[in-house]
Amino acid sequence: MNEELIIQTPGQGLIDITGKLVSLVNASECQHGLCTVFVTHTSASLTIQENADPSARRDLENWLNRLVPENDDLYSHTTEGADDMPAHIKAILTATSISIPVMNGRLGLGTWQGLYLWEHRRSAHRRRLLVHLGA
Amino acid sequence: MNEELIIQTPGQGLIDITGKLVSLVNASECQHGLCTVFVTHTSASLTIQENADPSARRDLENWLNRLVPENDDLYSHTTEGADDMPAHIKAILTATSISIPVMNGRLGLGTWQGLYLWEHRRSAHRRRLLVHLGA
Amino acid sequence: MNEELIIQTPGQGLIDITGKLVSLVNASECQHGLCTVFVTHTSASLTIQENADPSARRDLENWLNRLVPENDDLYSHTTEGADDMPAHIKAILTATSISIPVMNGRLGLGTWQGLYLWEHRRSAHRRRLLVHLGA
Repeated sequence: MNEELIIQTPGQGLIDITGKLVSLVNASECQHGLCTVFVTHTSASLTIQENADPSARRDLENWLNRLVPENDDLYSHTTEGADDMPAHIKAILTATSISIPVMNGRLGLGTWQGLYLWEHRRSAHRRRLLVHLGA
Repeated sequence: MNEELIIQTPGQGLIDITGKLVSLVNASECQHGLCTVFVTHTSASLTIQENADPSARRDLENWLNRLVPENDDLYSHTTEGADDMPAHIKAILTATSISIPVMNGRLGLGTWQGLYLWEHRRSAHRRRLLVHLGA
Repeated sequence: MNEELIIQTPGQGLIDITGKLVSLVNASECQHGLCTVFVTHTSASLTIQENADPSARRDLENWLNRLVPENDDLYSHTTEGADDMPAHIKAILTATSISIPVMNGRLGLGTWQGLYLWEHRRSAHRRRLLVHLGA
């Protein structure tokens, strides 16, 4: 089964999409299988991170923003805005696809794991994800 | 087929889990398919690296420790210990899931590839991995 | 279905393999499924990046070369050449496997996405990739 998931992002940040994925898995009645999420963009990505303390996600963002700053003299690809090239770099350092086993009808995330869509552009974007559920 | 794999780590470092994965694939009698490994934690991760010279893995660790040091003033998420926030960051820079094709009954790793569980916390941990084997 | 894909690289750089993957998917007559690409080496990797402006890929390379330079005093694994240890580090920061859903017989890449084999060694190499196509 393949499904499309449209996520409206408010701009840079980690957006929790765990609930949407759990709903898809529940609706599918899949008992044992593999759930793969794929993001169809090159300036947004996926990550699995702690779902408890929001300070962990804030630190992640600040750390990655410091590692990949805007207005770096190295960039030649600047026509799409100061946040575009950093967004591409952040995307390659994180994940474009993540696969999570489904066991006994439940998405196999750990207790403290959440799945996040990471918007790397400053402005709001409509992001299209593909979800595959296989046996 | 889904299996759980429990790995006891001795603290920070790369733990070779190739043998355990090969055993699972052999026991399954799968001839052609896809083997996916998923780690259910946010302070440990997966990586495929050279299985020959141990100095390569030592350099990897030292390099990542330098890129993501403890006690960075940027961190606000510090209540779980000085090694916790670096562990989360290292996890997002490496992999939470990896998929390896199975061909002719053999896990398709290259000659020099090993699969490693990367423990990012200083203390010993019990880590739970999920392995999916599909057609 | 599993296939082997041999790519001859001219040395360091991003090699577009989207066309080869699309051909495999088309030939398979798969309508809905999941296509997984796996690279069997530890000094080359995979990435999905913008397929439009080549300056984005050039900046990616330059940025990663600056983050992971050759001749870093930290390296002890130097017998295979100055570009070997940086190649291993770059491989763990990017992807060894990527999974892309197939929908209505089409590989589900976004409009601006291309799939690239990233050669991290300076000299030409023969790289072996495995492609799995499942339901």
